[in-house]
Amino acid sequence: MASLPNGAAAGGSSAAHPVDKEVDFANYFCTYGYLYHQKEMLCDRVRMDAYHSSVFRNAPHFQGKVVLDVGTGSGILAIWSAQAGARKVYAVEATNMAEHARELARANGVADIVEVIQGTVEDVELPEKVDVIISEWMGYFLLRESMFDSVICARDRWLKPDGVMYPSHARMWLAPIRTGLGDKKIEDLDIAMEDWNLFVEDTQTCYGVNMNALTKAYRAEHEKYYLKSSIWNNLHPNQVIGKPAVIKEIDCLTATVDEIREVRAQVTLPISLDGARLSALAGWFDVHFRGSVRNPAVEEVELNTAPNEHGGTHWGQQVFLLTPHLKVSRGDNVNVSFSMVRSKENHRLMDMEFTYELHELSGRKHPAVTAKMYLE
Amino acid sequence: MASLPNGAAAGGSSAAHPVDKEVDFANYFCTYGYLYHQKEMLCDRVRMDAYHSSVFRNAPHFQGKVVLDVGTGSGILAIWSAQAGARKVYAVEATNMAEHARELARANGVADIVEVIQGTVEDVELPEKVDVIISEWMGYFLLRESMFDSVICARDRWLKPDGVMYPSHARMWLAPIRTGLGDKKIEDLDIAMEDWNLFVEDTQTCYGVNMNALTKAYRAEHEKYYLKSSIWNNLHPNQVIGKPAVIKEIDCLTATVDEIREVRAQVTLPISLDGARLSALAGWFDVHFRGSVRNPAVEEVELNTAPNEHGGTHWGQQVFLLTPHLKVSRGDNVNVSFSMVRSKENHRLMDMEFTYELHELSGRKHPAVTAKMYLE
Repeated sequence: MASLPNGAAAGGSSAAHPVDKEVDFANYFCTYGYLYHQKEMLCDRVRMDAYHSSVFRNAPHFQGKVVLDVGTGSGILAIWSAQAGARKVYAVEATNMAEHARELARANGVADIVEVIQGTVEDVELPEKVDVIISEWMGYFLLRESMFDSVICARDRWLKPDGVMYPSHARMWLAPIRTGLGDKKIEDLDIAMEDWNLFVEDTQTCYGVNMNALTKAYRAEHEKYYLKSSIWNNLHPNQVIGKPAVIKEIDCLTATVDEIREVRAQVTLPISLDGARLSALAGWFDVHFRGSVRNPAVEEVELNTAPNEHGGTHWGQQVFLLTPHLKVSRGDNVNVSFSMVRSKENHRLMDMEFTYELHELSGRKHPAVTAKMYLE
Repeated sequence: MASLPNGAAAGGSSAAHPVDKEVDFANYFCTYGYLYHQKEMLCDRVRMDAYHSSVFRNAPHFQGKVVLDVGTGSGILAIWSAQAGARKVYAVEATNMAEHARELARANGVADIVEVIQGTVEDVELPEKVDVIISEWMGYFLLRESMFDSVICARDRWLKPDGVMYPSHARMWLAPIRTGLGDKKIEDLDIAMEDWNLFVEDTQTCYGVNMNALTKAYRAEHEKYYLKSSIWNNLHPNQVIGKPAVIKEIDCLTATVDEIREVRAQVTLPISLDGARLSALAGWFDVHFRGSVRNPAVEEVELNTAPNEHGGTHWGQQVFLLTPHLKVSRGDNVNVSFSMVRSKENHRLMDMEFTYELHELSGRKHPAVTAKMYLE
């Protein structure tokens, strides 16, 4: 047989069914057990600068306080918390990376403050409540990975009533963009189908089996892969051809899992460029470190993953192709109904539906188009 | 966080522990649910020709008989069995590919003969014993994927006493080779470590954390990835610089799981090329379709995945780098002790140990070197 090396892991658990922890570990956590992957995140300057500033510019939130770091990975946020003056930091990590985090805390002279606990935050028992929960839980388009569930669980179990969340707020954005990515994908799909057709002919001729019954399914599998799966990209700001809209706001201190299990929004995206080709929508997020109403930040810090000409983040943006594309001009509006739910097969992946409708400045309304997209 | 898309799935179950079926599905079976992957295998002409010949040149083994196809995938072997005259074919498939196999049987007019059963062969119940078990169970270096376990289970449960196995025999081979792959991997490792060192400096300077405590672990992770993981390659026969040796023979009619759970061999590989660079060992396999002693094949067919100048198979060969390499000449002998066991984390992957020792024709004996290698 010979499965492809590094075959993509699918399968798993749905939102409706209880999560199989062993499967979740196989599908998800394992990635974070590699230093290679930790380094990718530690080399993201935008991410590092934002968290570093959020801690050290708000040292009063940490001085003499108890901190919980959810998913500490290599331990960097826990170490910074200790360096900023925390009395105690509980650093929870599910993977064997926990051992490296422990080593790093030791090497940086904070082993007496940072206590690394290997396990999931859902299962962990702490000896006390905490003043701060810090976590870098954001996945592609904010909610991929569904890790914020664990942060909510940690908050409800361990945060003191006047405790603060780092970050404190998060937002998801959607914007109309132009990109050549779709042309390439359509070409790739065409090539794949030509190749399939040759294969069908060959298999009939050489091996006496008619494979044509699977042509439709093969096309569907490849359309999903090439056209309906969102594409990671670091866009240039000049690819954004209209006004981005917020489609979800999260207050990390009060959000519930029910609030993030589904995201639904209706937004209007005004086009700001003449004679442009609307070939995709793009999604990204930002988070803010504002402290709380009772304990506001000394200095508010933002981590923004929008298209940026000075370089992007490892999150990039997610591109959702619109096929076929639309010709648009300044003054046109694109009305978008958006919904995102967790995939039935794997609760950390997302199934989306976009219904978009172009209203030209002239008054002409194009028919609404509905497209399913997958964030895998 | 943002895990890498298509992150390699690890974790799972050890030979010592019971296999978690859900995890196994997430890690393993899922790959076979894609038509893309089925097509890769269906386009392997060496594989297709061998199985096609084995069935149609031995039609008497199939005419009027009952056949079990273990892991039917798209159903090709089941359809051929029916076309060759089988009275009934049970085609067992764990993934949703089962639905496509059913469709294909229908489209090829053998739906009354081929009964596709979705499930694992360990769980399946058949209404009768079978005359033939056909299966394409071979993974990289034969035993990766540990799928032969399922064939053994099927055989012990369902094969009639005088039934035959397709294929009937399998062998694993090891050979001394020359290749430039190691130089590239060493260079890649050097670059990765230079990059790490810059990262350590930057992280100290910009973020006040000393990451040096993880340098050793980072190197170990990357040495495993670049140097100690076997490499898929389709070698040219002129890269083989000595006589290949058989390190394992399997009689599919009698083999037990205990016999294949560990492979141990001591072989001598005589060098046949002067002034050559022994930079790796290569592993591959062949299987034979000979029928059984009581029911011998009309015509014996071989499926060979050795290096072949007329093109390879999708299995290719597995290259195990020897670092540093050895200068060898015709008449030298390389003694190799080989062992392969299943990985503790995932019973479908393999951990290997090679101890190799060069005995020059001159009588000079080089010290033995032991290297661990991973087939992932």
